[in-house]
Amino acid sequence: MPAQNMEELVSLCKRRGFIFQGSEIYGGLQGFWDYGPLGVELKNNIKAAWWRANIYERDDMEGLDASIIMHRLVLRHSGHEATFSDPMVDNRKNNKRYRLDHLVKDQKDAVVQKIAEIMNVDAANFPALIAALNASPAQASEALKAAGVRDAFSGEVGDWTEPKPFNMMFKTTIGPVADDESYGYLRPETAQGIFTNFKNVVDSTSRRLPFGIAQIGKAFRNEITPRNFIFRVRELEQMEIEYFCVPGTDEEWHEHWLERRLSWWEAQGVPRSKIEILDVPKEDLAHYSKRTYDLMYDYPTLGHEEIEGIANRSDYDLGSHTKNQAELGLVAKVSENNDSVAKLTIPHPDTNKPVVPFVIEPSAGVDRAMLAVLSEAFTKEVLENGSERIVLKLRPHLAPIKVAVIPLARNREEITTVAKAVKAQLQALGLGRVLYEDSGNIGKAYRRHDEVGTPFCVTVDFDTVGKGEDASLVDTVTVRDRDTLAQERVKIADLSDWVRRGLA
Amino acid sequence: MPAQNMEELVSLCKRRGFIFQGSEIYGGLQGFWDYGPLGVELKNNIKAAWWRANIYERDDMEGLDASIIMHRLVLRHSGHEATFSDPMVDNRKNNKRYRLDHLVKDQKDAVVQKIAEIMNVDAANFPALIAALNASPAQASEALKAAGVRDAFSGEVGDWTEPKPFNMMFKTTIGPVADDESYGYLRPETAQGIFTNFKNVVDSTSRRLPFGIAQIGKAFRNEITPRNFIFRVRELEQMEIEYFCVPGTDEEWHEHWLERRLSWWEAQGVPRSKIEILDVPKEDLAHYSKRTYDLMYDYPTLGHEEIEGIANRSDYDLGSHTKNQAELGLVAKVSENNDSVAKLTIPHPDTNKPVVPFVIEPSAGVDRAMLAVLSEAFTKEVLENGSERIVLKLRPHLAPIKVAVIPLARNREEITTVAKAVKAQLQALGLGRVLYEDSGNIGKAYRRHDEVGTPFCVTVDFDTVGKGEDASLVDTVTVRDRDTLAQERVKIADLSDWVRRGLA
Repeated sequence: MPAQNMEELVSLCKRRGFIFQGSEIYGGLQGFWDYGPLGVELKNNIKAAWWRANIYERDDMEGLDASIIMHRLVLRHSGHEATFSDPMVDNRKNNKRYRLDHLVKDQKDAVVQKIAEIMNVDAANFPALIAALNASPAQASEALKAAGVRDAFSGEVGDWTEPKPFNMMFKTTIGPVADDESYGYLRPETAQGIFTNFKNVVDSTSRRLPFGIAQIGKAFRNEITPRNFIFRVRELEQMEIEYFCVPGTDEEWHEHWLERRLSWWEAQGVPRSKIEILDVPKEDLAHYSKRTYDLMYDYPTLGHEEIEGIANRSDYDLGSHTKNQAELGLVAKVSENNDSVAKLTIPHPDTNKPVVPFVIEPSAGVDRAMLAVLSEAFTKEVLENGSERIVLKLRPHLAPIKVAVIPLARNREEITTVAKAVKAQLQALGLGRVLYEDSGNIGKAYRRHDEVGTPFCVTVDFDTVGKGEDASLVDTVTVRDRDTLAQERVKIADLSDWVRRGLA
Repeated sequence: MPAQNMEELVSLCKRRGFIFQGSEIYGGLQGFWDYGPLGVELKNNIKAAWWRANIYERDDMEGLDASIIMHRLVLRHSGHEATFSDPMVDNRKNNKRYRLDHLVKDQKDAVVQKIAEIMNVDAANFPALIAALNASPAQASEALKAAGVRDAFSGEVGDWTEPKPFNMMFKTTIGPVADDESYGYLRPETAQGIFTNFKNVVDSTSRRLPFGIAQIGKAFRNEITPRNFIFRVRELEQMEIEYFCVPGTDEEWHEHWLERRLSWWEAQGVPRSKIEILDVPKEDLAHYSKRTYDLMYDYPTLGHEEIEGIANRSDYDLGSHTKNQAELGLVAKVSENNDSVAKLTIPHPDTNKPVVPFVIEPSAGVDRAMLAVLSEAFTKEVLENGSERIVLKLRPHLAPIKVAVIPLARNREEITTVAKAVKAQLQALGLGRVLYEDSGNIGKAYRRHDEVGTPFCVTVDFDTVGKGEDASLVDTVTVRDRDTLAQERVKIADLSDWVRRGLA
């Protein structure tokens, strides 16, 4: 039975070293999280499973790792600079800055009514009110003051500036000279690095349509209001695919990827029955999107929330970043592009004429994947003796620690020597982390490794080293199974094969 | 024989899809690079080799993955906010900003002479001149103008502001309210995330001294003047270890890590004979550092440059981030810390009394590692027939592609079916990327895979599928060795074992 609420997950993650609050010793930084010793392994295992399934096990994919800081023109032509902007007003009295719509929404009805009167619009039509304020910034500044709009921070009526657009991306100055051109953005999605490298990848790999490019990496969103643990964060990690295909075959490939992605989630222990496929209604789609499937996983406490989006983005992205737009017969683009130096076309496989391919974009979040995987694996069981245990029933390939090797006595050299050799033997299999576990007694070790999802605990005891009562047990160890709790005596010589089978 | 100059390396990297200029289609962004399909695999293989050697194969290490954006107080107490600053002046005429020392250095001698006269210092003593300007900002502004200091951008005498400190880290506003407290920094090193999580890791893993924490991740340095390809960049990736030990045992652990790191480089194909160990002279050490070894690799064209630093940092870092500094008898710290909420101590293994451990820091750059590995692997050979080939003699565990499976005819279904099955069979070994290679003829494929370092090419031909002349060759393939050029006929049934041995 998966996790019943978010609190028990959060508590486990902190206690066992999966996830810590970022910059915690200075009071923490909202929306930023650090992955601890077990979190980094789980995260790496999820990323490796995704990379394997989407690049290694296919014959039509390439990988990429583009930089995080990107040229402002990339994010301008991608449409992010404009769409990620919302008008803001500053309070000159205390230099606080607020989103205009949030500020107005938070005022008392009478205040909103008064602004509406000054602006000569219907107070009941909120979007029209905001639009009117944005259309006349100088009048807006006067209206906010005259209506007595209060600052939530100070509680007093503010001295409000004109509304000005605020960029929702993280912006930073590059180099020593701070002027109007010397800045870049932290990418708000990894996808843009794929589009801008489209031609580089085609030229260096000789790829023909259809093919895709996959990337895993950090993305940053300043507009996020951080909440719900690692679900809504400002610094996130994405796993994105841009699959390029001949226009006209895009709908077929869209279905293909929906199916592939659902089966991938299943293989990570996130069953289809817990994922609702939302076929985003036409009226909610961005203008360039032909169709989008949102995969909505049923998170504990949160309910159904997006774990992955799979969008048919037509030729919008390459079309927006290419030069010579006019001659390419584009279906969609952000705006005219006179900055790009590259023609982002590829020969049509039938006609050999240059074509701007359509793109299918399966885009998943690593952090949200981790939360779903943890949630499905989380299990509370009542044992035969009536006691309760928490166990993470992670798929073996995702488990942060594959095997814990426990010396029954941590200060007896004959035992620790063998235990360390067993650990080295299993580590050499190359299946992931094997831990030499001597941090507590055997009971504590079992409890710990149940909670962190270690599939097997291997114990080296006095019998193993010929100091026990049963001579037939020399050179054998006890292997305990996380899920069944069964304990089996296995010869050290057979242990590698045993573990290899058990983790397959 | 390794690469003779940087140009031939750079050319290979671009041509074959290892590395591209960041944001290239918009003219590029200096100091930012994107890793292409082969670059990302090589980079991931280097990181995996480091993680395996430094965490998995030891019993005293934990991993971590902290956030990139950090609280400003982390970087204040780490000392970066102060030491990463250099005074800058703005030209009010065009809003360009320059580092004061660079600006003055770029002026004609007569101008420098005049500044020196006004400031009443010796023009020959440049540091004294800069110090004098910084000490009297108002007078400095007047002196620059009076002496006729020109702006390199406009070519005209500037209207210079007072020198002001400029932060050498990338700074960014967090959240919608821009005020004096709502900003953070992109970490200039991964190390700080380790120090700030010291207590979290100890509490969740029950580690005792000595033990270490390792992290791989991006770091950002705005003060860098980008040059020499991926050697000096603004966005870099680091592999850092902080090894915590009992004060007094630090010198021994320092030697231990020097030895371990040299042997790791050797295992990646970077021999000790190419690395000079620079025992940094006492007078060049930071005040908190007891001793630092810089590993200087002999790069082509660049000569000996730092590939890794291994520093004994005493208790400087934990001491700077801990609360209750006064009662801890610290050897070193940045300054008084009244912001931290955590006491960064651990019980002394002998006395059980809380102690701030000393730390040994082996810190290597992923990008520089990649450049060294590529440089050592790069080989130009003259073949028996007199032709020349370029081959990357990468260690198998680092090769971006382990095996290329080549169908001799790419449109003959009986051959492609078998080739795809062979590819899937080898991919399932879990040894890394296996490529189904049908982008050109066999000669081109061999040349390509020599250049990108693929250890083995496997060819499926007409004999394999029983359509050739020799019936004894059915169900066998040709395996070509990258280094020896030997070709061997291997049964498909034996191929997995053959490849496993070959890549070991």
